[in-house]
Amino acid sequence: MRRRALLGAGGLAALAAGGAALAADDPAVRGPAAAPGPPGRIPFHGPHQAGILTPRQACARLAALDLTPGADRARAAALLRAWTVAAERLSRGEPPGEADADTGVALGAGPASLTVTFGFGAGFFDRTGLASARPPALAPLPAFPGDRLDPARSGGDLFLQVAAADPFAAVHALRALQRIARGAAATRWEMTGFTRPSGTGAADGTHRNLMGQLDGTANPDPAADRAQRDRILVTGPDAPGWLRGGSYVVVRRIRMLLDHWEGLPVHHREQAVGRRVTDGAPLTGGTERTPVDLDAARPDGVPVIAANAHIRLAAPKTNSGATMLRRGWSYYDGPRPDGAPDAGMLFVAWQTDPGTGFLPVQHRLARGDALARYVEHEASALFVAPRGAAPGEWIGQALLEG
Amino acid sequence: MRRRALLGAGGLAALAAGGAALAADDPAVRGPAAAPGPPGRIPFHGPHQAGILTPRQACARLAALDLTPGADRARAAALLRAWTVAAERLSRGEPPGEADADTGVALGAGPASLTVTFGFGAGFFDRTGLASARPPALAPLPAFPGDRLDPARSGGDLFLQVAAADPFAAVHALRALQRIARGAAATRWEMTGFTRPSGTGAADGTHRNLMGQLDGTANPDPAADRAQRDRILVTGPDAPGWLRGGSYVVVRRIRMLLDHWEGLPVHHREQAVGRRVTDGAPLTGGTERTPVDLDAARPDGVPVIAANAHIRLAAPKTNSGATMLRRGWSYYDGPRPDGAPDAGMLFVAWQTDPGTGFLPVQHRLARGDALARYVEHEASALFVAPRGAAPGEWIGQALLEG
Repeated sequence: MRRRALLGAGGLAALAAGGAALAADDPAVRGPAAAPGPPGRIPFHGPHQAGILTPRQACARLAALDLTPGADRARAAALLRAWTVAAERLSRGEPPGEADADTGVALGAGPASLTVTFGFGAGFFDRTGLASARPPALAPLPAFPGDRLDPARSGGDLFLQVAAADPFAAVHALRALQRIARGAAATRWEMTGFTRPSGTGAADGTHRNLMGQLDGTANPDPAADRAQRDRILVTGPDAPGWLRGGSYVVVRRIRMLLDHWEGLPVHHREQAVGRRVTDGAPLTGGTERTPVDLDAARPDGVPVIAANAHIRLAAPKTNSGATMLRRGWSYYDGPRPDGAPDAGMLFVAWQTDPGTGFLPVQHRLARGDALARYVEHEASALFVAPRGAAPGEWIGQALLEG
Repeated sequence: MRRRALLGAGGLAALAAGGAALAADDPAVRGPAAAPGPPGRIPFHGPHQAGILTPRQACARLAALDLTPGADRARAAALLRAWTVAAERLSRGEPPGEADADTGVALGAGPASLTVTFGFGAGFFDRTGLASARPPALAPLPAFPGDRLDPARSGGDLFLQVAAADPFAAVHALRALQRIARGAAATRWEMTGFTRPSGTGAADGTHRNLMGQLDGTANPDPAADRAQRDRILVTGPDAPGWLRGGSYVVVRRIRMLLDHWEGLPVHHREQAVGRRVTDGAPLTGGTERTPVDLDAARPDGVPVIAANAHIRLAAPKTNSGATMLRRGWSYYDGPRPDGAPDAGMLFVAWQTDPGTGFLPVQHRLARGDALARYVEHEASALFVAPRGAAPGEWIGQALLEG
């Protein structure tokens, strides 16, 4: 019994009809093509942190750090101040500090669509004397049946999502941020992900995952729909100022049991998902964007979409209201000691509240997703991303100086 | 005492002047832009295997396999026959076999500049009853002082270099080839590398490595110079037919001790290499392509290029005749258990004969390369790549049926 939320976040298509176009009002939403400045530059400053609503980049380095024992609020504030300066410079394609001290790994890469997104885990609030400011939504995720979580690769006080079009730019930025953290925070875990590079093949449509399925057909399009953005970002008037414009992110390392999956006949794989491999159309017909007909039955009365098909359990009907922006990456780290591939998905899902986003979907899938036997959740973390920083401000300042 | 051949293969610049242009006579040399057929398609068939003279792709998956105990020449031949069919199809962007049995991971990627390059280790000859056909140049590499080789990630009977512009295409191809090998050969080791994607930043010039140095300034340009090609490929009339048009490849996993390196002042880093970080110009002046002046001295008589600078030890003067085509990738696999980065270079160097290529350069560097203290050779292998296959022929056929 394992429970997953790989394909198709629930409840999203239902929301897609209502919103007004708003793409022009936030540079972070528009992505590299339309952003001002040099090609590939994603503005660091703004009401939301870059790397949440930004179109997905080809390379990701995710990391969590723990505050050094004895570190206090002043130390954490100094770290975030220094990180903010460095991240802003890196997003312009500049060295993070003194050019002479930089190894030059990213020279020639340009801004490379680099984004750095910062998050705080529950422990961050406790260790900085801010336990009373810790939002209730940051409560630990429950254990889901079937989870096989590695504590060493789960959780963490601080989260860094570094993403770029160029792997050297991403490595360069992550290492620079890790160097800056020395003495204040130590890396707890680090993961590397990829997706299809922009400009190659079908990169601009829905991405595939390593199971071969188009993955994210039902993902919200925050550039086109403000109602959906309000379910990804924290926008409510009750939220504290440091959080308004922020978001919660669930990070799960979901290993795919590819040796099993790849041995299945195509009809079995398509039944488990409920969509065709080739074009992602639901098995009830049409094209990728055609709504699935959950009531359709074959002449013998058997439902076309199986009772345990992934898209039935994750369908809008089943999970109305549960919205996440899934913005993950695939990973493929070669064979494990047992010979099986250490490969799968770095599931990264942004939401206004995990209680109305990840949790209901994952509980639903836990009741019997057909994909469950082919994946294993190996690591899990929940962070809150504070709102973006205005020029001259540092990330988290309103919280730490609040 | 560690010995390396990271930057600047010796003796290459000296050869660059002599050759005639020959770019038009071999599609594998021309690369994606000029190749016939759909964009990004590298022809599989030809006198040389694709992936040797081909411009470097962004993503690489390297693997070695060992023949299953009991496998004989017939089994090896069947494997190579099946691999050839699959690799040719994959290089056209097609599934490797029955489309229905394919998971579709690479659907939409197109040919993606995919190449699959096959090599044989010494053990391949022994286990297939071909010991008498094993070329003397395939003798085991000597142990170099300072090597810290992991036997589990070194050597192997069969080598696969899978490279592509798209990581899904590369994963898809490697997994397909591994599936085909089941029962005949088992994966011994696997490594993942990257370089700057084409179309981003300065991808079309010399690549940087994770130490931040432009790496490969002195690399031969086989498209421009036949004399250099004759030192990369086996072209001599004495070579057996299966080998003529082939090459030897040295694969080394060279870890970079980045925590140490990145802490050095820039002048120290530049002295160790002998070149400027920013533009790769030799410290004796000019631009990246300006020949280094090894005799230049400062007013106080100290040589501008230090006695142990990498480019002095690897300079044409010092290693005349030693030619390799270095076509490696960087790797960055996150932190090791000790917290240090598991990062460096997958050194992949092609040559007519390791006895006149890798060995003299590495012996020279072993006498005191200034970079030696910042790198560790962790794995090593030597393979021979048979010549390319003509349409209807399979890789290695002339050897196994000879």
